[in-house]
Amino acid sequence: MSEENLFHGIAVQDYNDWKNPKKIQFKAKTFNDHDIQIKVECCGVCGSDIHAASGHWGNIPTPLVVGHEIVGRVVKVGDRCDNGLKVGDRVGVGAQVFSCLECNRCKTDNESYCPKWVATYGGEYPDGYISKGGYADFVRVHEHFVVPIPENIPSEYAAPLLCGGLTVFSPLLRNGCGPGKKVGIVGIGGIGHQGVIFANAMGAEVYAISRTSKKKDDAFKLGAHHFIATKEEPDWGTKYYDTFDLIVVCANSLTDIDFDVVPHTMKIGGRIVSISIPEMSQVLKLKPFGLKGVSISNSHLGSIKELKTLLKLVSEKNLRIWIETIPIGEKGVHEAFDRMDKGDVRYRFTMVDYDKEFSQNQ
Amino acid sequence: MSEENLFHGIAVQDYNDWKNPKKIQFKAKTFNDHDIQIKVECCGVCGSDIHAASGHWGNIPTPLVVGHEIVGRVVKVGDRCDNGLKVGDRVGVGAQVFSCLECNRCKTDNESYCPKWVATYGGEYPDGYISKGGYADFVRVHEHFVVPIPENIPSEYAAPLLCGGLTVFSPLLRNGCGPGKKVGIVGIGGIGHQGVIFANAMGAEVYAISRTSKKKDDAFKLGAHHFIATKEEPDWGTKYYDTFDLIVVCANSLTDIDFDVVPHTMKIGGRIVSISIPEMSQVLKLKPFGLKGVSISNSHLGSIKELKTLLKLVSEKNLRIWIETIPIGEKGVHEAFDRMDKGDVRYRFTMVDYDKEFSQNQ
Repeated sequence: MSEENLFHGIAVQDYNDWKNPKKIQFKAKTFNDHDIQIKVECCGVCGSDIHAASGHWGNIPTPLVVGHEIVGRVVKVGDRCDNGLKVGDRVGVGAQVFSCLECNRCKTDNESYCPKWVATYGGEYPDGYISKGGYADFVRVHEHFVVPIPENIPSEYAAPLLCGGLTVFSPLLRNGCGPGKKVGIVGIGGIGHQGVIFANAMGAEVYAISRTSKKKDDAFKLGAHHFIATKEEPDWGTKYYDTFDLIVVCANSLTDIDFDVVPHTMKIGGRIVSISIPEMSQVLKLKPFGLKGVSISNSHLGSIKELKTLLKLVSEKNLRIWIETIPIGEKGVHEAFDRMDKGDVRYRFTMVDYDKEFSQNQ
Repeated sequence: MSEENLFHGIAVQDYNDWKNPKKIQFKAKTFNDHDIQIKVECCGVCGSDIHAASGHWGNIPTPLVVGHEIVGRVVKVGDRCDNGLKVGDRVGVGAQVFSCLECNRCKTDNESYCPKWVATYGGEYPDGYISKGGYADFVRVHEHFVVPIPENIPSEYAAPLLCGGLTVFSPLLRNGCGPGKKVGIVGIGGIGHQGVIFANAMGAEVYAISRTSKKKDDAFKLGAHHFIATKEEPDWGTKYYDTFDLIVVCANSLTDIDFDVVPHTMKIGGRIVSISIPEMSQVLKLKPFGLKGVSISNSHLGSIKELKTLLKLVSEKNLRIWIETIPIGEKGVHEAFDRMDKGDVRYRFTMVDYDKEFSQNQ
């Protein structure tokens, strides 16, 4: 195999020792005519990385190279690419790298719901290759899933927008978040804190909803207009009766939110959208009488069109999400996994210093 | 008590013998300034009547006079009424007879979700009076909940529109049923058969969804364009993948429909709306991964504005629901309860011949 088809990354090789991933060399995905090769500059650390690396979502074939909030520079463009990207452009890749682009869902900007979608890591391509993510020196991605990053967004702030940001932005956009609307964001973490920033930027009246008041000050700084600590206000369902047009649930677990209470706080026609990806075994139990006039749904990622809209909003309003950077490498990924697992993050990690870790291989 | 405050009806007095209700005389609700008194001409038999009469919804204080699809003539108008109705007008009353008319829900045409709403029978008014329904010679109802019946709709066909019809029409209207939309109606019964008629009249492509093919011929006559027998097509979830914009579930029980299958048949952004009022103990269990991009909600009755819209549609398009008439009286109500309990109805009963039963009292 030629050197150019060998990439390097930090990989989980043993789920029993998932917090200590190792640096490996691996065979790259075949470079197709519509692919773009990107030299990675930084990569956000998503909750999904922890779910996948720890084996909570089942044991994906190893080596598992996670990371799906990738920012880097285009280094190679497939012969049939026609999205205008060229070598040297700074670009981003989120949690999806492939879909059929032919079905009704793909054609209606719902490619994240295409049954043939391939996740950025641990996903199986039609040829059997298991996708590898952004904790690596390079990635190869179908051009449809590569977006330009606006100049005024620093890479480490852009990365977490690509999965976490889009995941909360899509349901806000699809469900009418804007002026005159009261929007609740449940769970102020890596994704939820971005939800507060975006909902505020979109003009809504924003309620940050958390279990305790620990994050109250942060929530107001992020742009929330109200804060609810559900464990400290047991009657919050009554107090906020008939309040919300939209609630986006960003909590990790379905047990973090009481679905017997939330519907009471919704206006008629209001929408509860969960973007949580809980452990597979969790089941949502609803009392149908309780859902009167209120809908519940689950949103999955977002479209590339919506991602471009989000990047435009962040660029134009000069929004800054809250991040902490960690250098990529065995030590750095261990630290990121360990601190994410403990919830010790305000509010998103971005792995950086790729040149230092990988320059000898490049 | 003066004679004018004594009404007569067919009432459940003993839940252990609910199928044999008795003719009784009862004290009427106090006649208020905004009330209209109606001499009942006929009344539809709703599934709710059976739930209530049989005690499935708990034992409502007896005597219980059910019936909330009431058509009759105005015989008395309260001094402060201002909705234009006058003595002699033919009018209808559905499943709701009171709400505060002041709260946000009432003011946004969501009065059926007002926390102070009073059901047409078995509901408690602020003064403690338990409301009595339309299996009686007269009813007294707040003017807001009394609607004129268009001239070309015969009374016995108008009655079932007032609760059952409105209940399926409201979610069709609120969720975009119309040209270009694929709409499924699950459960072809008293309510569902009206859903097929209305969805077709609204211009949608209509799929009647039933457990077996017993009602297939009827469904096509009602206006369905497609028919699915879920028990006979076990792979219907795959066959109809990505098909529906809207499904309205009119089945009596939540176990009649497989919520692990239905979401697969929905388009992204599609809506599943249940109008079922199951037994209180039923709980809906959802696998959150399965609800990707699809919402589920529960709709309760509809607004008076929507009822007027429905009556206009039925009048203008000269729609006819499918009914069978039964004379009111102890014998007739027994027959209606017994046959409804057995599912022996195509598709709605209307109790008629009120003059014969009650003339001696009028």
